[in-house]
Amino acid sequence: MLIQPRKQVKRTLIIGAAMLGLTLPIAATASEPAPEEPKQIILVIADGMGFPFLSAYRYFKDGRNSSVAADIEQTIFDQYLLGSASTYPADDTLVTDSAASATALATGVKTYNGAIAMDSEGNPIPTIMQLAREKGWQTAAIATTKVTHATPASFFTHSPSRRMEDEIADQFAVVDDNGQPIFDLLLGSGRKHFVREDAEGNRVSHLRTLNNRGVRVIESYEQLQTQQRLPLLGLFFDDSFPYVIDDEKRLEMMTREGLRLLGNSEKPFVLMIEASMIDWCGHANDVACAMHEMAELEELMEFLEEYADGRNDTQIILTADHSTGGLSLGADGNYKFRAGDLHRIGRGLRTMAVDLNDMPAIDWDAYIEKYLPFPLSSEHQAALSEVAASTSERRRADIQDILVNIVRFHTGAGWTTGGHTGEDVPVIAIGPWSDSFRGSQDQTDIGKQLFDWVQN
Amino acid sequence: MLIQPRKQVKRTLIIGAAMLGLTLPIAATASEPAPEEPKQIILVIADGMGFPFLSAYRYFKDGRNSSVAADIEQTIFDQYLLGSASTYPADDTLVTDSAASATALATGVKTYNGAIAMDSEGNPIPTIMQLAREKGWQTAAIATTKVTHATPASFFTHSPSRRMEDEIADQFAVVDDNGQPIFDLLLGSGRKHFVREDAEGNRVSHLRTLNNRGVRVIESYEQLQTQQRLPLLGLFFDDSFPYVIDDEKRLEMMTREGLRLLGNSEKPFVLMIEASMIDWCGHANDVACAMHEMAELEELMEFLEEYADGRNDTQIILTADHSTGGLSLGADGNYKFRAGDLHRIGRGLRTMAVDLNDMPAIDWDAYIEKYLPFPLSSEHQAALSEVAASTSERRRADIQDILVNIVRFHTGAGWTTGGHTGEDVPVIAIGPWSDSFRGSQDQTDIGKQLFDWVQN
Repeated sequence: MLIQPRKQVKRTLIIGAAMLGLTLPIAATASEPAPEEPKQIILVIADGMGFPFLSAYRYFKDGRNSSVAADIEQTIFDQYLLGSASTYPADDTLVTDSAASATALATGVKTYNGAIAMDSEGNPIPTIMQLAREKGWQTAAIATTKVTHATPASFFTHSPSRRMEDEIADQFAVVDDNGQPIFDLLLGSGRKHFVREDAEGNRVSHLRTLNNRGVRVIESYEQLQTQQRLPLLGLFFDDSFPYVIDDEKRLEMMTREGLRLLGNSEKPFVLMIEASMIDWCGHANDVACAMHEMAELEELMEFLEEYADGRNDTQIILTADHSTGGLSLGADGNYKFRAGDLHRIGRGLRTMAVDLNDMPAIDWDAYIEKYLPFPLSSEHQAALSEVAASTSERRRADIQDILVNIVRFHTGAGWTTGGHTGEDVPVIAIGPWSDSFRGSQDQTDIGKQLFDWVQN
Repeated sequence: MLIQPRKQVKRTLIIGAAMLGLTLPIAATASEPAPEEPKQIILVIADGMGFPFLSAYRYFKDGRNSSVAADIEQTIFDQYLLGSASTYPADDTLVTDSAASATALATGVKTYNGAIAMDSEGNPIPTIMQLAREKGWQTAAIATTKVTHATPASFFTHSPSRRMEDEIADQFAVVDDNGQPIFDLLLGSGRKHFVREDAEGNRVSHLRTLNNRGVRVIESYEQLQTQQRLPLLGLFFDDSFPYVIDDEKRLEMMTREGLRLLGNSEKPFVLMIEASMIDWCGHANDVACAMHEMAELEELMEFLEEYADGRNDTQIILTADHSTGGLSLGADGNYKFRAGDLHRIGRGLRTMAVDLNDMPAIDWDAYIEKYLPFPLSSEHQAALSEVAASTSERRRADIQDILVNIVRFHTGAGWTTGGHTGEDVPVIAIGPWSDSFRGSQDQTDIGKQLFDWVQN
């Protein structure tokens, strides 16, 4: 018995090509000769997706708690896995945050935790998006979080601290010497940093300014689907996106529309896509939440695989900026991971904690029975009764801690931290230039490779 | 800044060979033409070594808590990393034990946890060592644990339960129809299962029997170094080996001597080497202990790299059977991994707990100051005072739990379990046939590859 490759034929062809020593890009259906370097660079950053998330997702997708009856199929992540990347920042932690890590990927240079494309002396570090604009490429980013958040921000802006999101929005709103915005396509959320009051109480409205400068600004998925030209700024939520487990997938749709719009021009492009909320689920120690975000990422990667399949100029790289939470499959001495039971969980644990905190305790049983249908131990029941009667300011967090424990107990998913961890992360690639990413590397090597491609 | 490859030149040569499409083995210094399949197969199983152990060891080896001043060098594990392997057993756990996992590697077939090369219907599954003997190859195993333990046992014997170590020793003591033992070289520990009283109180002395059948039996490293011929059984300890952190490295020496003896014959061989005690350190949630076992493994791999470098018929594969403990770099919300401080820890935590449990409490401060020289928080001091006065039967385990907490607090190494975890494990290979192991695979694929090589 072995894991069945998802698409054995395709995999064999790829290996076959490697065995024949084909290192130059191979033409697919496109009739143009293949370029020496990719002209469509798509870097997907799965925030927080360490190796354990790939293993967990394979079993989650299989959908069973057991592997007795049949072998377990590979995922698209397995199919294109090439190696790993180290992520340590240039400070005294060895454990990176999303800002230092995104900077490493966006610039090829390590910096300290919290820095947005800026070094420890306060010098801005040139980013791949800046270089791409200089070279006449289109630049684009799509994220399931605020565009002012650490990962997208590090590709376009510079700041000594990721917390300065208003100032980051200010930078997104500027134009260059030619009156052009610093991006062609920017999709995410975070309207509140673009339309706000400043410290003196004056109204800041970057959206109107950008609109006056020729940037279309949209605020709904429906609007996105009818857009016909760039530059475009889409801010679909005032603050953050909802979790997939609580709402719906959207990353593949946003990317499909984004590629349609980028495809209107002959110009090459660099597109950074962030699957932002795997990390958030990790911070919440919520494994079902993470698996639903992974499902969204898988849908994206399958779309991108199909997109690249018809082209000879497109290179896709998927990596994580770090792992989050210290996820393990098995915990507390138990040799089990109940991947099938994860499908029984109907909401994000943070969402459930907020809901429970806001509703009368008399309604808790029915709510928990609906969204977290596991038999509760007497300890868990006692803990819930106690927190139901609590008037602590930490009540919401205390509820969430109990829900996390219930899921850990029943599914065997373990966590060590509400923060990040410093293990190497997976590196996955699709496209003719994938060999560049084989084996163990540092994440700055990925950033440097992007620079090499755009520089030439 | 990036991780500096340990041996940039060699790595470039390897990549260069791949780019030229060289898939046939290339002759090194040997003047013989390269064979189509390897004739010296060395499978190294690092028990419990999940991906986090590779990252942690890189930073441990670097020896600093920080990465501000300079880049961090790659290890030999980084240099030859090729991919990953899934390890789920054929039962309802998704988290394997060492028996099912060793069976998967030794036979290419998944089984249930606890089974030694036996399926769930009680049928023995043919192992690579059995096939190799049939084909006239030499067979050998070297482990830093009892040879009757799950991993070495699964390569030579069959049992419905790994716990039946006496019966496993009985199987090692039998001879085949030609009066030959079932192994050529077997180095490890576990004399107590070979020389014992049976259920009726009769003395069992397999060592004498084996000796009468032409197998040399030795019990010290000094004896090993003077041996001149096979078959050979070395049982260096009655029970288990000591931890490297408490004693000394020995795996490279045992392997060097083993290869010398195997080299006396023209026959090809399969050699399984188990770095057994990384797993034990993981079970004890003892990160410094694990790092010292990793240092032993690195020394082994550097020796094997050199050994293979002069040959064109040798393939080395390194993988883990599973990860142990749910290790993370960073824990409890702190973004830090104090790799440098791990060097300050002078003993295994289990050893320390045994020592402390056996000594007067008045001597504890000096002992802890010597072997675990961290400033103790008032909570940790209070916990130690409490357990010092305890008369519980769990006192030793309680002491160890406190020591584990002290190390976690000061170094940022997190753990989720005292058991195994189900994440995919690293796959590393050195030799002309390494391309077979690229990307994501199941561990049974590795076992099947070994079968293919020996079958032909």
